[in-house]
Amino acid sequence: MESPTSLFLALDLVGTLAFAVNGALTALRVVRLDIVGAVTLGMFTAMGGGIVRDTLLGVLPPTTFSDWRYLAVAASGGLMAFGFRAGLERVTKSIVVLDAAGLSLFAVTGTLKALSLDAGVAQAVILGVVSAVGGGILRDVLVGQVPIVLRSELYVVPALLAALLVAMGDAFVLRTLPVAFAAALICFAVRMAAVRYRLDVPGRGGDG
Amino acid sequence: MESPTSLFLALDLVGTLAFAVNGALTALRVVRLDIVGAVTLGMFTAMGGGIVRDTLLGVLPPTTFSDWRYLAVAASGGLMAFGFRAGLERVTKSIVVLDAAGLSLFAVTGTLKALSLDAGVAQAVILGVVSAVGGGILRDVLVGQVPIVLRSELYVVPALLAALLVAMGDAFVLRTLPVAFAAALICFAVRMAAVRYRLDVPGRGGDG
Amino acid sequence: MESPTSLFLALDLVGTLAFAVNGALTALRVVRLDIVGAVTLGMFTAMGGGIVRDTLLGVLPPTTFSDWRYLAVAASGGLMAFGFRAGLERVTKSIVVLDAAGLSLFAVTGTLKALSLDAGVAQAVILGVVSAVGGGILRDVLVGQVPIVLRSELYVVPALLAALLVAMGDAFVLRTLPVAFAAALICFAVRMAAVRYRLDVPGRGGDG
Repeated sequence: MESPTSLFLALDLVGTLAFAVNGALTALRVVRLDIVGAVTLGMFTAMGGGIVRDTLLGVLPPTTFSDWRYLAVAASGGLMAFGFRAGLERVTKSIVVLDAAGLSLFAVTGTLKALSLDAGVAQAVILGVVSAVGGGILRDVLVGQVPIVLRSELYVVPALLAALLVAMGDAFVLRTLPVAFAAALICFAVRMAAVRYRLDVPGRGGDG
Repeated sequence: MESPTSLFLALDLVGTLAFAVNGALTALRVVRLDIVGAVTLGMFTAMGGGIVRDTLLGVLPPTTFSDWRYLAVAASGGLMAFGFRAGLERVTKSIVVLDAAGLSLFAVTGTLKALSLDAGVAQAVILGVVSAVGGGILRDVLVGQVPIVLRSELYVVPALLAALLVAMGDAFVLRTLPVAFAAALICFAVRMAAVRYRLDVPGRGGDG
Repeated sequence: MESPTSLFLALDLVGTLAFAVNGALTALRVVRLDIVGAVTLGMFTAMGGGIVRDTLLGVLPPTTFSDWRYLAVAASGGLMAFGFRAGLERVTKSIVVLDAAGLSLFAVTGTLKALSLDAGVAQAVILGVVSAVGGGILRDVLVGQVPIVLRSELYVVPALLAALLVAMGDAFVLRTLPVAFAAALICFAVRMAAVRYRLDVPGRGGDG
């Protein structure tokens, strides 16, 4: 496996940006917060998953926190969201797309980081999922909603799929770059299809 | 004190199973989630307390996370709950009993683990309580309820009692096995009595 | 910079006490919890910010948890609140003042602690803010409210101001004591002015 360092950083920062804008837009949309509240919720959403991932890996202080680039990108994303909020008619759609993007990218980077630190395969896959869903859980809890990962519509499943693909690629010594992109794209596509066609995994509790 | 390793693991895994089934049933009952949501909430409930305990002890990665047996038991518990949900008329009762079981076992194992890592007695007792109530707090917050530990009816008190008994047993060099079982049983009995007879500690704020 | 050890401890314990009373009063006021629930919420509010701060700094076990003085002060604060609840007509005001006091003190101590452990300046400032707002976020989430840090009215801004002042004082090698007091006072004054005159930062989302 080639060194994934700069690839990893790029994907992780793009995911951070996506979640920061998503969190700030959610703040503006759902709770009608002011600029400070929006940027704050954006930063929590963007950095929550990575901080939990790094803590569970024992990487303390968490890179997501100690590396200033994450702070800068997360804060910028929140400010951007505030600047762009004028086109509010498209906000709901943007929130969904950005959330799917962050989910896909963090599922990949979370798994890659865990593997690079020699976590077991099962742990790496779970950490990928935790990185992907952690920020969104924090966001939803903070605005008083049941987290989307529980309300589902195929949310955790595509993240799990991406994490499994990355872990398998690593096990079979495939090149990291194409596997990472393919995994992120598949996660994004499945998630967006689930939203678009209101797909759901079988057996909702409501049937019981 | 004899080596509590395998005793500890057994109690900790049974507690994990109890909380996993409890969390998944709660997901099905309270929020009518699908199978993925139920298993996810089951895993959060089952592993939350142990992960917080290990993080506070500085054991990173947390054993509850890095040891695959916890992951396997937690996931299995969530799936079992989904399979068993047919008998829904008994779900509410099962949720309460499983919660009391997880509470009792984690109060004991949390205290034992902290003592084995040479934490102070007060810290070990608090860590026992944190292990016992942590997963349930996460569960309740995620489904949008005020945590049962705050709504009380003697919830934190039996956990504190069990943790104190274990710490005292350790201080007086009693055999770990009988003390651990006695502490867990007492916690379970007090908790179930509180639920059954709607007992409460004195002085609810509502009187003020 | 003179050794801030005992100054730090004193400010940190006073902040702990303020947040413990605040959290317990909130429990009694908002959710009408019993004494155990009130003390529990008081301890979460008082110790949450410091535990997150220390975890992010990699100081594990967290000092806020391993040093018994924090446990003792936090528990005492919760009990005091329960004893004083008779004068309920003043509770709402007390909650606000104690929250502002805890916010101001923890913004200062969080920044000082991060600087003393050689965190970067940006990290130290953010950690000051995280320490200041962490316990309150936990408190609000646990009682089912959107955290005040998001609902704002200039909440995070004074904390950020205090953290910046402390970091600047440190960078310019000023004496820690007067800078710390000035920073805490300014934070407290801005926060109380915001509450008193219902000030807000510009551009609430509701305008959009």
